[in-house]
Amino acid sequence: MSKILIKAMVLPMTGPDVFYSRGEICIEEDRILSVGEEGSAPGNFVPDRILNLPNDVVMPGLINTHTHAAMTLLRSYADDLPLMPWLHDKVWPFEDKMTEQDIYWGTALALCEMIHSGTTTMLDMYASMDQVAEAVLQAGTRAVLSRGLIGNAPNGERALQECIDLVQQYHGAGGGRLKVMFGPHAPYTCSGEYLRRVKAEADRLGVGIHIHVAETLDEIAMLKEQYGKTPVEWLDELGLFGGHVVAAHCVHLTPNDMEILARRHVCVAHNPESNMKLNSGTAPIIELRHRGIVVGLGTDGASSNNNLDLFGEMRSAAFQQKLQVDSTALPAYQVLEMATVNGAQTLGFEDVGMLAPGFKADLITVDLDQPHFYPRFSIPAHLAYVAHAGDVRTMMVDGRILMEERKILTLDVHRVCQEAETRAKRIAAELN
Amino acid sequence: MSKILIKAMVLPMTGPDVFYSRGEICIEEDRILSVGEEGSAPGNFVPDRILNLPNDVVMPGLINTHTHAAMTLLRSYADDLPLMPWLHDKVWPFEDKMTEQDIYWGTALALCEMIHSGTTTMLDMYASMDQVAEAVLQAGTRAVLSRGLIGNAPNGERALQECIDLVQQYHGAGGGRLKVMFGPHAPYTCSGEYLRRVKAEADRLGVGIHIHVAETLDEIAMLKEQYGKTPVEWLDELGLFGGHVVAAHCVHLTPNDMEILARRHVCVAHNPESNMKLNSGTAPIIELRHRGIVVGLGTDGASSNNNLDLFGEMRSAAFQQKLQVDSTALPAYQVLEMATVNGAQTLGFEDVGMLAPGFKADLITVDLDQPHFYPRFSIPAHLAYVAHAGDVRTMMVDGRILMEERKILTLDVHRVCQEAETRAKRIAAELN
Repeated sequence: MSKILIKAMVLPMTGPDVFYSRGEICIEEDRILSVGEEGSAPGNFVPDRILNLPNDVVMPGLINTHTHAAMTLLRSYADDLPLMPWLHDKVWPFEDKMTEQDIYWGTALALCEMIHSGTTTMLDMYASMDQVAEAVLQAGTRAVLSRGLIGNAPNGERALQECIDLVQQYHGAGGGRLKVMFGPHAPYTCSGEYLRRVKAEADRLGVGIHIHVAETLDEIAMLKEQYGKTPVEWLDELGLFGGHVVAAHCVHLTPNDMEILARRHVCVAHNPESNMKLNSGTAPIIELRHRGIVVGLGTDGASSNNNLDLFGEMRSAAFQQKLQVDSTALPAYQVLEMATVNGAQTLGFEDVGMLAPGFKADLITVDLDQPHFYPRFSIPAHLAYVAHAGDVRTMMVDGRILMEERKILTLDVHRVCQEAETRAKRIAAELN
Repeated sequence: MSKILIKAMVLPMTGPDVFYSRGEICIEEDRILSVGEEGSAPGNFVPDRILNLPNDVVMPGLINTHTHAAMTLLRSYADDLPLMPWLHDKVWPFEDKMTEQDIYWGTALALCEMIHSGTTTMLDMYASMDQVAEAVLQAGTRAVLSRGLIGNAPNGERALQECIDLVQQYHGAGGGRLKVMFGPHAPYTCSGEYLRRVKAEADRLGVGIHIHVAETLDEIAMLKEQYGKTPVEWLDELGLFGGHVVAAHCVHLTPNDMEILARRHVCVAHNPESNMKLNSGTAPIIELRHRGIVVGLGTDGASSNNNLDLFGEMRSAAFQQKLQVDSTALPAYQVLEMATVNGAQTLGFEDVGMLAPGFKADLITVDLDQPHFYPRFSIPAHLAYVAHAGDVRTMMVDGRILMEERKILTLDVHRVCQEAETRAKRIAAELN
């Protein structure tokens, strides 16, 4: 189907005052042709299909700038523990038992949840990324894939080669729906020498880098002891910044760190719920934004969240900043920007994140005809502070409908759930 | 219909290790007859109706221990403002324009949202509480009604008389579904003399008191200046404590305040999302619980939240404490207790909040056959950290089914939404 007309309320995220209460969007193949009030469609546009959803609002699909999708298999497996026992006794032993096929199905489960909750694009960091790529191609969503690289681990060299192979095989695949970045895990799990090689390979192949930075006070202390520097200072000295870099977390930063991130145009993936649940701290989002740093939103993995719902994440992002700073901090429209426009900027997609002519048709519709969305004073406030995952009715990526009336059209949800259940329980049993 | 059998997973909230994976609950009239694994129903129990929901979990209905239900009419009307302009320029002028009928329809809207999101019982503080009572009787839920009393306002005397009338008319109404408490607003909006009279009337009529306490640092400063005491010390000196008292917020407490609250058996209504959004602070929930103080959960009004979803509130409660204290703070089962068992204790319902023989049949079912609830390692963690409002399938209060397959059977949802929309927009227009 090549021409679709959507009639609905439209929040295009092209500016805080732009909203069409009886809007329409024309979509041709994978791109948006026009957006505006009723009657704005080009006269010669004859749709093959009309989606008439007067009580829904159409908005750009949400963008998850930091996750470990296959960790859905660990959802509610280990909670309420101190960080180190959680990692050493629970997460890592479980991950050691995961096969390539487990990663495929865990990712498929994540994609089902993401489609249900309005997320069209993710930046994923994990292993067996070819499996992740295949799951994303099947689901029809958009993704940036980063092979997690733990330089200090025995497989550090092999993982680096896998990442190089991944770039060659999947960068630009799916008609541009897939991109690849290098995923060095963190400055405390990769040596300086290893990080320099990662950066050289990324530059050679013309792709970006995704890395955890300054997530916990323990990390700050480790880097201070080892290098006498903050994580940001150390990575800057290594020359890791400069190209396209997405730094996840950035909870504990000095003013000089923020100055470096701004100067080097590093993008930040903010994960408020993971930062709260793991007691990592409150990232200085207001200050980062004031310095012009692009900040996207992420859920982190389902083991530290425990869901992949970006509506909840928007709410938590705003409320956490309001708690920390003041009640005017991170207003509704700004947090929506973080989950859409800024998410696309963070991931380096130039034609995603807004509903505008020429942009990719990556969008969702949210069913506002429910008690919790009345009265309708502010649609941005409703979406940022009221909406939840279950309110998403429709999803389209690249002009293709992936979900309609909450039914996912590209994945066999029942089978995915059963495979995930069986595989997760098998791993847990192996560990007992 | 007098005998119902529910076949489902059961989390009865009678203890952290009690869970029936293939459970059944027998309900006769308004009460639970038996709860257990398959086959546990009494041999002579012949149900009129069987609800067969093998992929749902049945749990006690959620209890909202602090809200202003009719403030749904102000949802997303005024956000991201400093506290005082928000109150003086937005909330209070809007409320001044609300008629009795507006309060009825605003409350009905809140009740639709509460039923959709699993809340069977609320403690409401507002005006025109006879309208609230009628809406609750119509909806079929359970409620404690407190007439908000601002002693320093011109209508302080009339409001006190209204509260006395309310006790006489509605305390125990609806077969015990309604109770009444006095609702003196706060120690800074009621004089000591007024509060003493409220306490005397409450004692005379044998009902409790609901009051805002220690919500903001401004309040602490005001009381310190006026009385040289903390709010808790001042209320204790006035003799307000001692009977059944529900103190909302309790964000800023000294060790001595907590000692007083514990000694006087004051119950606390904790509102984490309102406290975050309004920059009030983080209440010391872990310390309160360590001292044996009963803490329930509340959403506060939809103007400072902006929804009435207790699943989101559980998640925020746990994450806020983990951020403030450590990652082990307020684990999943405890936060579920706050929203059920402890909520019932807070409100003084002795036969509500657990699924046990002899208890009222106030329960919900949550549809776990969705991607975000796989794999199923821990049902309590799923409910506390993953679930959202849209996951509730069924609600029963007093043995009566109020919602089935998400369809509310007692209220005309479409009309309620339209009335709320029309009335809220009328008020906003009057203020322009």
